[in-house]
Amino acid sequence: MIAVLSGGVGGAKLVLGMSEVLAPQELAVIANTGDDFVHLGLRISPDLDTLMYTLSNEVNPETGWGRKNESWQFMAALEALGGETWFRLGDRDLATHVERTRRLGAGETLSAITADLCRRFGIGLPILPMTDEQVRTIIHTDQGKLDFQTYFVRRQTRPVVTGFDYSGAPTARTTAQVTEVLADPQLEAIVLAPSNPYLSIDPVLAIPAIRRAIQASPAPVLAVSPIVGGRALKGPTAKIMLELGDQPSAAGVARHYQELLDGFILDTVDENLAAEIQAMDMAVATTQTIMQSIGDKTRLARFTIEFAASMRKR
Amino acid sequence: MIAVLSGGVGGAKLVLGMSEVLAPQELAVIANTGDDFVHLGLRISPDLDTLMYTLSNEVNPETGWGRKNESWQFMAALEALGGETWFRLGDRDLATHVERTRRLGAGETLSAITADLCRRFGIGLPILPMTDEQVRTIIHTDQGKLDFQTYFVRRQTRPVVTGFDYSGAPTARTTAQVTEVLADPQLEAIVLAPSNPYLSIDPVLAIPAIRRAIQASPAPVLAVSPIVGGRALKGPTAKIMLELGDQPSAAGVARHYQELLDGFILDTVDENLAAEIQAMDMAVATTQTIMQSIGDKTRLARFTIEFAASMRKR
Repeated sequence: MIAVLSGGVGGAKLVLGMSEVLAPQELAVIANTGDDFVHLGLRISPDLDTLMYTLSNEVNPETGWGRKNESWQFMAALEALGGETWFRLGDRDLATHVERTRRLGAGETLSAITADLCRRFGIGLPILPMTDEQVRTIIHTDQGKLDFQTYFVRRQTRPVVTGFDYSGAPTARTTAQVTEVLADPQLEAIVLAPSNPYLSIDPVLAIPAIRRAIQASPAPVLAVSPIVGGRALKGPTAKIMLELGDQPSAAGVARHYQELLDGFILDTVDENLAAEIQAMDMAVATTQTIMQSIGDKTRLARFTIEFAASMRKR
Repeated sequence: MIAVLSGGVGGAKLVLGMSEVLAPQELAVIANTGDDFVHLGLRISPDLDTLMYTLSNEVNPETGWGRKNESWQFMAALEALGGETWFRLGDRDLATHVERTRRLGAGETLSAITADLCRRFGIGLPILPMTDEQVRTIIHTDQGKLDFQTYFVRRQTRPVVTGFDYSGAPTARTTAQVTEVLADPQLEAIVLAPSNPYLSIDPVLAIPAIRRAIQASPAPVLAVSPIVGGRALKGPTAKIMLELGDQPSAAGVARHYQELLDGFILDTVDENLAAEIQAMDMAVATTQTIMQSIGDKTRLARFTIEFAASMRKR
């Protein structure tokens, strides 16, 4: 069994690769819900949705999020009514949010709903919300404290970041399923996916029971760098690192996670950083980490699994 | 000023005709909200929507309800997720429900939201919900007490009706706008539209302040028969009348409203019933009442207005 901590697009790509290589019962995803929010009265879980859509081959291949073959009739009609349109909800995507919201309102847990939606999408492996309680990522910026979607979508990551607050995380419990995965004596690796460390992985690690379980696990913990050649493959990771005074590089990411990591995978273009990262007392492996084709994803997945296996043998 | 009490499809047709004949400030619609319900967490107001869509030329001309040029991507996606699909919500229609639900949740009244939606739809005349409070039509049947949508959509009006309960109506207040319209000394007529008496008009009349205001108004009160040649033009009106032991005819409708009416308009095919209805102490006028073309609607609207004027002169 391999556990992957993941956010949305980047993480979902690696998880998709792993799902091609491993049997469903050999893989579990622990997903960030710190970006979850209520919009138009609907509960939206962006990372859960991106994972579900990616793993069911329902994802829009051009964006990496949202649904393929999407239509926008609802949005056009809402705009005509003067409704809020800064967050775009496609007609097919909307079904996920309406159904989730209805079921949460009926008292079901996010975990139970997600498990059922995954079954409906034909996804065999478990996608586990990090918690069924409310954790919200707050971004401290030069324009004040912003909730995730305001920072990310409305202001398009332009504000200068000064820090983060994972509101609710310090007191949030994780779920029985997450606890079980991380306590599994058969666990072969815990992988931090190539997602944004601050916005996608840190909210998961901010839940005390999850961090403790990772630290207590005998399984090697490794990360795949979301920064290649000093740039984020997607999103504002490098920009945020610069703004926080961190080194906007794979080495900066390794340092950020240093306390937890046994191993780090960086791109071949960043091979020159290997020694610096090894000096942080972790194993380092380099490979091509940019995932475009499904072949790229399975190759990186296989590489990650083999790297984890090599660490267990040490 | 003419006030029309209306349900959905049939009433909306007459209101559309009247809107062609009268200036927006000469007409007000008092709309049934007894069919309103919450579905998929969304607040749906079927009669308000049918009125809005009809008056904005947005209505599906084939059904008389729902939106034209509608698409069903949301519904198809919801079905794939195992969601409830017995009540069909189109992608464009959905925008109305989502926006209404959001604004109700933010504390706005149904009246204020409806007024704003009408403005967005370019509708000049006021569509006034009969109340901002909750009134729900309950249908007593041989299969037990059913809410409106269960009876009407799920069971397709098949159960045998034994009675009705307009839950909440006896204690519901109407709105300031409805009160103002009905108390207007310039009011020239109060028209009960050719809607289902039990399901569309009686819920409005069940609100004590509305019934009292109609009884107190010096304006003539008249009804347009929803039954032509012993059949309802749409829906289960005749079936319900039979089940209740009422006469399934225009005369039966006149008798149902007898206490309130000064005048009654019936179709030329029912001319043989005129004497029976006149004997109920009301004026009777006959004309072609079936509204297919816009010409039919404006002609019946004009006829209704002139009939009301003739009653004022008596």
